[in-house]
Amino acid sequence: MCELLGMTANVPTDIRFSFAALAQRGGGTGPHRDGWGIAFYEGRGTRAFHDPQPSAHSEIARLLRDYPLKSEIVIAHVRRANRGRVGLENTHPFTRELWGRAWTFAHNGQLKGIKKRRLKLFHPIGTTDSEHAFCWLLDQLRASFATLPSPAALDRALGQLCRDLGTLGIFNVLMSEGRTLYAFCNKQLYYLVRQAPFGVATLVDEDLRVDFSTVTSPGDRVVVVASNPLTRDEIWSELPLQTLTAIRNGTVV
Amino acid sequence: MCELLGMTANVPTDIRFSFAALAQRGGGTGPHRDGWGIAFYEGRGTRAFHDPQPSAHSEIARLLRDYPLKSEIVIAHVRRANRGRVGLENTHPFTRELWGRAWTFAHNGQLKGIKKRRLKLFHPIGTTDSEHAFCWLLDQLRASFATLPSPAALDRALGQLCRDLGTLGIFNVLMSEGRTLYAFCNKQLYYLVRQAPFGVATLVDEDLRVDFSTVTSPGDRVVVVASNPLTRDEIWSELPLQTLTAIRNGTVV
Repeated sequence: MCELLGMTANVPTDIRFSFAALAQRGGGTGPHRDGWGIAFYEGRGTRAFHDPQPSAHSEIARLLRDYPLKSEIVIAHVRRANRGRVGLENTHPFTRELWGRAWTFAHNGQLKGIKKRRLKLFHPIGTTDSEHAFCWLLDQLRASFATLPSPAALDRALGQLCRDLGTLGIFNVLMSEGRTLYAFCNKQLYYLVRQAPFGVATLVDEDLRVDFSTVTSPGDRVVVVASNPLTRDEIWSELPLQTLTAIRNGTVV
Repeated sequence: MCELLGMTANVPTDIRFSFAALAQRGGGTGPHRDGWGIAFYEGRGTRAFHDPQPSAHSEIARLLRDYPLKSEIVIAHVRRANRGRVGLENTHPFTRELWGRAWTFAHNGQLKGIKKRRLKLFHPIGTTDSEHAFCWLLDQLRASFATLPSPAALDRALGQLCRDLGTLGIFNVLMSEGRTLYAFCNKQLYYLVRQAPFGVATLVDEDLRVDFSTVTSPGDRVVVVASNPLTRDEIWSELPLQTLTAIRNGTVV
């Protein structure tokens, strides 16, 4: 199994506080020591960091804990390998370009028989179930829409595809095309909305507190999605099962 | 204009010494202050670092100067923008997946009329000539070969495509699909082979020396390609113009 972390906001936002918790679970407070990765959207551009080292002991993770990258959408993953060897090519999040958009995908779970689904234009570089599922999903989208569809049309199409993939096993997933953070789960994902009045939050995994009122503006809205709650003094809600949740501009649509 | 750096070797090799020189040229000893990027191949996997900040002052570049990532193929780029705004989406190297391989592409030059060439499956995320050229090139390859061709067949096809693109303007380029480092130039690229007996090298751009005999084994072969020589006590040769040079396992094919 693995752990997922997603964030999206209506203003470019620093994810270091939440990432500190996730990074600890990669070989520190959690067993997800088989690599980690994180992708940041900044406008149309993305940058991603991947490391097959455990995040709790990774130099690159340490840099990201110290260095404020502000982003509208972030997807991160710490891996505990089940299918596919430990190696860079099997480290989430995976990325592809479709319709001139950078797509990012991270998955927690296993999908029985996924590799029997034939692929056309997108092909895995590594050997995980997850990357195969991502490629299949993009193939279906490409077959349905010649160019980037409206957000509402994409929400519908992606929801159907996710429910289909969810019949094969555990399919907790975060993905984005740069406009929307999509979250789908059939086992477990939690989310949290941070908005005014902002308060203090304390991480579950290490002794780190932030008073968000000192680092935000009143209009900011931040949504965080995670496999398990990351803070102990905020209210985390379970995402509905079998439902694609679309989060745009800091708001659950 | 921009500067390029490529490296490939027959064993996973640390590029920090050469990268230190290139990074200085991004806003330090050179004017290429409009972002930089670097991609590392490790087996089938890749990891890339991109930053719209000048590399001479970038925290991420500093990490990479300190942190030994060993790789078989590396492609790096410092940018001085001409077409396309300064931003993450316009920062080389660009990456795409084709035939289940991670492709990486970095370009120095401008290509007149490139955006009139129609694209089919691959589309730019940013607005540079370079990314459009990369997408066009991958479209042509995809149309010619349903699956990954042999290295020799790919060398030939890519050579033709590069000569065609070179008719549009300056086309100095480094690219890879993970097996081969390809270099094409119609203006200027230099290369260097490091092999036994290894000696001492001193950077042009800063006071940094390495005695390669202390960090290599006798069978190691490393090829470095750069827009301008990076060291002052080694022999750099110009790559032939209008010719695609393929470098595999530390050997110019």
